[in-house]
Amino acid sequence: MELPEFDEVIAFIEDGDDFLLTSHVNSDGDAIGACLALTRMLDGLDKKATIVLQDVPGEPYEFLEGFSSIMAAESVPVEATACVAVLDCPSLDRIGRIQDCLDEQTRILNIDHHAGNVHFGAVNLVSENVCSTSELLYHLAVAMGVPIDPALAEQLYTGILFDTGGFRYSLTKPTSMEAAAALVRLGARLDFVADRIYNNSSLASLKLIGRAIDSLELTAGGRVACLHLTRGDMRSGDPETAVNYGLKIRGVEVSMLLKEEAPEHYRVSLRSRERIDVRAVAARFGGGGHTRASGCNIDGTAESVRAALLEEVGRQLAAAA
Amino acid sequence: MELPEFDEVIAFIEDGDDFLLTSHVNSDGDAIGACLALTRMLDGLDKKATIVLQDVPGEPYEFLEGFSSIMAAESVPVEATACVAVLDCPSLDRIGRIQDCLDEQTRILNIDHHAGNVHFGAVNLVSENVCSTSELLYHLAVAMGVPIDPALAEQLYTGILFDTGGFRYSLTKPTSMEAAAALVRLGARLDFVADRIYNNSSLASLKLIGRAIDSLELTAGGRVACLHLTRGDMRSGDPETAVNYGLKIRGVEVSMLLKEEAPEHYRVSLRSRERIDVRAVAARFGGGGHTRASGCNIDGTAESVRAALLEEVGRQLAAAA
Repeated sequence: MELPEFDEVIAFIEDGDDFLLTSHVNSDGDAIGACLALTRMLDGLDKKATIVLQDVPGEPYEFLEGFSSIMAAESVPVEATACVAVLDCPSLDRIGRIQDCLDEQTRILNIDHHAGNVHFGAVNLVSENVCSTSELLYHLAVAMGVPIDPALAEQLYTGILFDTGGFRYSLTKPTSMEAAAALVRLGARLDFVADRIYNNSSLASLKLIGRAIDSLELTAGGRVACLHLTRGDMRSGDPETAVNYGLKIRGVEVSMLLKEEAPEHYRVSLRSRERIDVRAVAARFGGGGHTRASGCNIDGTAESVRAALLEEVGRQLAAAA
Repeated sequence: MELPEFDEVIAFIEDGDDFLLTSHVNSDGDAIGACLALTRMLDGLDKKATIVLQDVPGEPYEFLEGFSSIMAAESVPVEATACVAVLDCPSLDRIGRIQDCLDEQTRILNIDHHAGNVHFGAVNLVSENVCSTSELLYHLAVAMGVPIDPALAEQLYTGILFDTGGFRYSLTKPTSMEAAAALVRLGARLDFVADRIYNNSSLASLKLIGRAIDSLELTAGGRVACLHLTRGDMRSGDPETAVNYGLKIRGVEVSMLLKEEAPEHYRVSLRSRERIDVRAVAARFGGGGHTRASGCNIDGTAESVRAALLEEVGRQLAAAA
C-alpha cells in the first residue's frame, strides 16, 4: 500500500530529532503496539522518541520490546514539545492530560485509522481502509524501507491482532492478514502474542466472568441477553469483556451488562451482533460509543434500569425488523 | 505451494467419475470444510461426489454450501465404492463405520496434514507444513487452476480458521494467513464465519461454562487449574471447551476438567500451555491425545481422581523444570 501522505510523513520525520509519541486515554493494544513500533522505526533512523500516555498501560503488553520505557501521565514532562506524533486517536481531546505538552509551536503528526478522525495534525496520515494504526505503520515502514526486525514485527502484529479481535471483526481486510503473514515471516511469534493477549486473566477476573454468565437471562424471545454484576461482585474487578458472553449464544442480537457501581447507580455495557444500533440505545441515557459497542450510566434499581433498557432495545429491534 | 504429489492427485481425480468422500469420526471444522470444498472442486470438473461421515456434523457448519447433502452413517450405502477420498485423517481406522464402504477393489486418495499420517492411500497427499487439510486443498485448487468461487472460498476458510484456533495456535503458518487473505479476496466472509464458529452456543452450554468457571480452583502454586462438573451439571450437555478456561489464567500451565459421567466414573480433559506433556499424563491412565490436549477416563471419587491426576501432573512439572 502506498498513500500520497507517506511523503509528508517522511518529511515530518526527517525534520525532527526528538519526538513525543502519545495516544488515546485507556490505551489499548493497537495504541501501545503503534507507539512502540514508531519509536523503534525512529530509533532505526537515529531519532529520539519518548512515549507518554495518560494511563499506565496494561500488563498483557509487558512482553513488547520497549514497554518499560513508556511513561505514564504522573511522570509527564510538562514543558511543551516541538514534535508530537499522536497515534490511533480520532481527536486531540482524547489524549487527555497529555494535551499539557502541546503549545502553539507544537507540530503534530496524526496517524490513525478511525472513521471520524478530525485531521487535527500539521500532517495527517489517516485511512479507514486499514484495520488498525499498526497496519498503517507497517505499510509506512515498507514504503520507507525501514528494516523490520523481530521486535518491530511483534509490536505491529500485536496492534493488528488486537484491533481485529484476532482477525474476527468485519474491519479485518485481506491486507490486514497479508501484513500479519509478512510480520510472522519477519519474526512475530503469533502463538506467543495471542497467548499474552487472550490468556492473561487473573483468577479474580475469570471468576467474575463466571458470575456474569451465572446471572445471564434471555428475554425478548431469546434476542436479548441480560447480565448483572452486584456491588459485591464488582469488588474484585471490572470485567469489561463479560458482556461479550451474551453474544456467544446463537439468536442473541443484543447483550447488556449491568454493573452496580454504587447503590441505585449502574454502569451499563451494550453489545450487538449485526443489525442493532446500541449507540442509539446508549444515547437515550446520555451515553455513547459505537454502533455495536456502547455504554451509559443509569440510576435506579436493577429492575427499573433493566426495564428502561429493554424498552429502548425493543424500539431498535422493531426498527430493524 | 507446489508439491510433487499434486500430479498424482490430479491423475487420481481424472481417472474417477464418482467419488465417496469421508473423514475422521466426530468430524470437526477442518474435516467438514475440506469434504465440502473437495466436493465443490469435483463438481467444477463435472465429477460426482458423495460425502459420508460416521457422525452427524454439528449445527455451526449449517451455513456452508452443500452442508445438507452430507450423509451420516445411518444412511450409508453399504456396497463398496471404487474411488474414496479420505480427508484430514491420519489412519484408516479413524473413519469408523465408513470402513464398510471399502473393499480390496477400492482405491483411496489420502489428503491430510497430521504428523502421524500412515500413508494408507493408493495416492497420498500429506504435508505437515500446512495448518489444515483445507489449506492443502487451497494450494491444490490453485495448482489445478480450479476456479474458487465465494462458496468454495468460504468452505476452505472455515477449515483454516477452525484448525488454527482462529490463527492462534503454533501450527499457523504465514502460508495459512496468506491463503486466508486470498480466500477473503475471493469472497469468504471472515466475520460471518468467525461468528458462526465462535458465537454459536446454546444457553445451556454457556451456563455449563459458567458452572465450570465457578468450580475452578488453582493448585500447585497457581500452575494447575482444576475444574469439575457433576452429573447434575452434565445433564445439560458436554462442554468440551470449558477446560480451556483454566488456561486463560496467567501462570497456569495445566488445566484439567473432571466430568462425572457416572457415579465414581470421571472423564478427564487435559490442556497445557507450552511446556507440559499432558499426553504423558493421560497415558498413565490409559488415555491419549496430543502433547497439549489429551484425555482419559478414571474411576474413583472426585478427590481420589484429582489427587491421582495432580501426582502425575506434578511429575511432568518437575521433569520440565
